[in-house]
Amino acid sequence: MRRTAFFISDSTGITAETLGQSLLAQFENIEFDKVVMPFVDNEEKARRAVDRINDAADRDGAAPIIFDTIVNQEIRAIIGASRGELLDIFSTFLSPLERALGTKSSFTVGRGYSGTRELQYQKRISAVNYALENDDGARINRYGQAEIILVGVSRSGKTPTCLYMAMQHGIFAANYPLTEEDLDHGGIPRPLLPYRSKLYGLTIEPERLAAIRNERRANSSYASMSRCEDEVRMAESLFSRHGIPFIDVTHSSVEELSAKILAETGMREHIR
Amino acid sequence: MRRTAFFISDSTGITAETLGQSLLAQFENIEFDKVVMPFVDNEEKARRAVDRINDAADRDGAAPIIFDTIVNQEIRAIIGASRGELLDIFSTFLSPLERALGTKSSFTVGRGYSGTRELQYQKRISAVNYALENDDGARINRYGQAEIILVGVSRSGKTPTCLYMAMQHGIFAANYPLTEEDLDHGGIPRPLLPYRSKLYGLTIEPERLAAIRNERRANSSYASMSRCEDEVRMAESLFSRHGIPFIDVTHSSVEELSAKILAETGMREHIR
Repeated sequence: MRRTAFFISDSTGITAETLGQSLLAQFENIEFDKVVMPFVDNEEKARRAVDRINDAADRDGAAPIIFDTIVNQEIRAIIGASRGELLDIFSTFLSPLERALGTKSSFTVGRGYSGTRELQYQKRISAVNYALENDDGARINRYGQAEIILVGVSRSGKTPTCLYMAMQHGIFAANYPLTEEDLDHGGIPRPLLPYRSKLYGLTIEPERLAAIRNERRANSSYASMSRCEDEVRMAESLFSRHGIPFIDVTHSSVEELSAKILAETGMREHIR
Repeated sequence: MRRTAFFISDSTGITAETLGQSLLAQFENIEFDKVVMPFVDNEEKARRAVDRINDAADRDGAAPIIFDTIVNQEIRAIIGASRGELLDIFSTFLSPLERALGTKSSFTVGRGYSGTRELQYQKRISAVNYALENDDGARINRYGQAEIILVGVSRSGKTPTCLYMAMQHGIFAANYPLTEEDLDHGGIPRPLLPYRSKLYGLTIEPERLAAIRNERRANSSYASMSRCEDEVRMAESLFSRHGIPFIDVTHSSVEELSAKILAETGMREHIR
């Protein structure tokens, strides 16, 4: 069975897409053709969207599903007159919210929203720049600015995790790669000593590490199973010995890793 | 007026937080204390969440708002018995969706969801690595792999935009910084000639560019207003002359820029 789903917004469409994807994932037996339509912000674009929705209805022989976060009422009315099944995200929740909060929303009075996320925007971009500049122990003299320092062996996923924390949450995340010397020595590496409370370890299953390293340098001793096993064992033992919390990245996405690390450290419990 | 809002999930909480933030932004006159609680995946954690919800109810003298995407029914029941106002995101939309699709969801039958996003995960991580390795024209020999190449003067926002496209959407995005030589020459820079159809320009208001460059190198000629004005004018003229589409980054976030560029190029109309 095949159905078409539209994510339509007069802005970026991130909310419609995030929620819509989560909901559609609950229907594992249906294959969806998913169409993203951001910035549907005038009547002409809305009418073109309606054409596409009706075309999909003909093709599928069933009503397309529409997830929308359109604020403008006229535009929403046009989409609503299509042959799709409209799940109107904002209005569905705004009535109960208005009741609970005892006040009208700016949506109901016809204004768009300003997006509190903007407030955080400069911090997020600064955090991305910080992550790039402090990647792989490049500038250990700036660890003082870090909110968290991820520690792990080469290719254990430090960089993407730092970047995600920065981009999504505005966290200043640096990272430090454990070298063979660090692992042999077994103590907290000297540049990290002043920042023990900021350290968070990443570990990974040796098989997965070897696979990742092989993509980079095939058949090198760097990518060999025995070397990967040794490094992972020594890194985990270093973390344990010095009370550095750590997490296994093998079966988690960067979203999950970030959320878990931030939840455990309590760094992002209260947000703006 | 001050109210507390909880975003509660038995997974990362990204959906609950994204939707909740969009909805709360519609209530501009209320100051929210926002609390993120991901991975509430057992009854003990649920009971601790209830304690915190009830504490907030006492403190605020009003019911906290709860946005939840908890799949497990027992855990949801515990949260539902708190003194908060529960906006149950999944069940609210799943009934109309089940009706429209004519089938039960795995949520209703008590299973979690596997997340189609995972399918895209390896591509997203590869795209992040690609963006990092192809930043600032570092490896022009790998432009062939790019799906899009962002072009602009130094500090016009190419890197964060590439990284966002990669992280969020799995797009292979490279970038190329226009040098003074490129601008004087006025043609499409030689390394980009084979990839004209992939080029997308970024421009920026000279005042903003000067401010950003000043943060990096204060009072340099690089950051001077006259140099920024010249570079921006020459870059825009290069884009226009060669039919390279371009966008002004000054008043947009990376989310907006990515969404606009991807919408205009039609690169991400159909998603997985």
